[in-house]
Amino acid sequence: MKTVVIGSGSWGTALAQVLADNHQDVILYGVEPAQVNDINNNHKNSQFFPNTDLNPELKATTDMNVVKNADMVVLAVPSAFISDVAKQVSDLADKKLIVVNVAKGFDPKTNERMSEAIRHAMDPAKLSSVVSLIGPSHAEEVVERQLTSIDAISQNEKDAQMVQSLFSNPYLRIYTGTDEVGSELGAAVKNVMAIASGIISGLGYKDNTRAALITRGLQEMIRFGTAFGGDPKTFIGLTGVGDLIVTCSSLNSRNFQAGYEIGKANEVEHFLKNNKKTVEGIRTAKIVHELAKEKNLDMPICEEVYQILYEGKEPSMCASDLMLRDLKREF
Amino acid sequence: MKTVVIGSGSWGTALAQVLADNHQDVILYGVEPAQVNDINNNHKNSQFFPNTDLNPELKATTDMNVVKNADMVVLAVPSAFISDVAKQVSDLADKKLIVVNVAKGFDPKTNERMSEAIRHAMDPAKLSSVVSLIGPSHAEEVVERQLTSIDAISQNEKDAQMVQSLFSNPYLRIYTGTDEVGSELGAAVKNVMAIASGIISGLGYKDNTRAALITRGLQEMIRFGTAFGGDPKTFIGLTGVGDLIVTCSSLNSRNFQAGYEIGKANEVEHFLKNNKKTVEGIRTAKIVHELAKEKNLDMPICEEVYQILYEGKEPSMCASDLMLRDLKREF
Repeated sequence: MKTVVIGSGSWGTALAQVLADNHQDVILYGVEPAQVNDINNNHKNSQFFPNTDLNPELKATTDMNVVKNADMVVLAVPSAFISDVAKQVSDLADKKLIVVNVAKGFDPKTNERMSEAIRHAMDPAKLSSVVSLIGPSHAEEVVERQLTSIDAISQNEKDAQMVQSLFSNPYLRIYTGTDEVGSELGAAVKNVMAIASGIISGLGYKDNTRAALITRGLQEMIRFGTAFGGDPKTFIGLTGVGDLIVTCSSLNSRNFQAGYEIGKANEVEHFLKNNKKTVEGIRTAKIVHELAKEKNLDMPICEEVYQILYEGKEPSMCASDLMLRDLKREF
Repeated sequence: MKTVVIGSGSWGTALAQVLADNHQDVILYGVEPAQVNDINNNHKNSQFFPNTDLNPELKATTDMNVVKNADMVVLAVPSAFISDVAKQVSDLADKKLIVVNVAKGFDPKTNERMSEAIRHAMDPAKLSSVVSLIGPSHAEEVVERQLTSIDAISQNEKDAQMVQSLFSNPYLRIYTGTDEVGSELGAAVKNVMAIASGIISGLGYKDNTRAALITRGLQEMIRFGTAFGGDPKTFIGLTGVGDLIVTCSSLNSRNFQAGYEIGKANEVEHFLKNNKKTVEGIRTAKIVHELAKEKNLDMPICEEVYQILYEGKEPSMCASDLMLRDLKREF
């Protein structure tokens, strides 16, 4: 199996190294010549992992034509570019590919989930199936070969098992699953919750408050995901609560960190003006707001995040509005 | 309503202060004269909260006769003493009491849950009902009036609502629920998971590993709790996943801390010999092991914790045995 990983950001680099560690035929495609040279010559991706030496077998390229004779392509690009990149891959590919997606969110033009957007963008003759890798996994820890468990989710269970066998090793445990809807919607919503959790932390709230927020966030995630056909039990698994916990609790998460800065400043303008990083939850919050409205779903935490990001509501007001609702039964 | 809080440890002190903050008629009973004097004279409980000034209205006593004309008693003592203390309360009380329990675990003689053990120990004429306060709540944060959400769980919903109205205030949000079995079993199992999480951290594993452990721990908790009649949705609430997250992630949790020390040393003997604190998960691990065996339940994480604590298995061996199981579907 010849694999091309597209996107030399943190997660693309970490997953390409996993395949190199597993002695797979893999190449990492990046757009930045300096970064590609850094990987090839110094065995480093200094921008993302300044203190980590990469597997010296890992090679990178700026030539996208490597996709031509690939059997599998890993898309490790932001959700906003998934559709365009999938189309490019489809145009270049010689064979039917397994496409592994690791982006979380929605297509900005169509509000489609990532797997839907990829299927939509590609020629069916070039696509075996989409397999999503989702689960609690800071790239910073995977690149250091810390023990990590994630899911390979696909409508095509055989392709999910193929991805499982290619990526699994003693530090990366891959489980398979077939609930594409539940897994992708959970992964998308969790980025909004991570912003909420960051805001709460930035405002000075501590562990008790965060645990309550994550708990109620999980319930919102389930409400949202099942409304679109996700299996309720998916959300208590690695792609649901697992990913939610890790993303809501660590400055390694860009979404948490964005929320933290917004909470600390108690206003959103400064952050939005100066941020250069991809923070998936920002766009996702808007799309979740729209989709929840369509389905008439009660999503109080997502709604407060939306109000902060898009309506200029003061973060500290949102926190008290959320927490000081009427006393009632939990369920 | 006249309330006596029995047990001047961290959680008893924090909850007594909540009632004092709410201008309730409350007194805190403790066995240590020095601690009682510290509370009455210095408005401090220096052993547990050296840096916190308590509400000066909070009074403490070493005279258990205050129970005589109480309407509500809060039991904030370790699970091993619940049965004896409940009996004492029953013998002393003049009226029918609401008994609020905050201990988590099982009665060591009968393996009964806390509410069962209290009902068993008390004269029915002296007991209106048992209400359990359970949820993500480090006492250290509640005593600092950090925003916290927990559940008041009782078979008697009216008593749960009474407890809710007495304890609720702007920093402590109480929700009600009636699933005594699910809430109490979740709260018990989570202490075993917290030991596992501490062990993992002590061994040097990081966020990805811990999130996977908590996720799979939640699934074990659900398996165990539903086998005894708990409602599945209870475990995705504050008494389930909420309490699990906070207990598995912080050195404020004694169970996590115990696990951390055991993991760090990669052996259990030294810890067990020198530990003076109540670590509920240690006894609970044994009882969960027994109960799971009776019901023939697969509880791999609890079983590894049991093996470490009671069979001398090396912690690092357990971690790899847990994580390196066969590749398979997640569900």
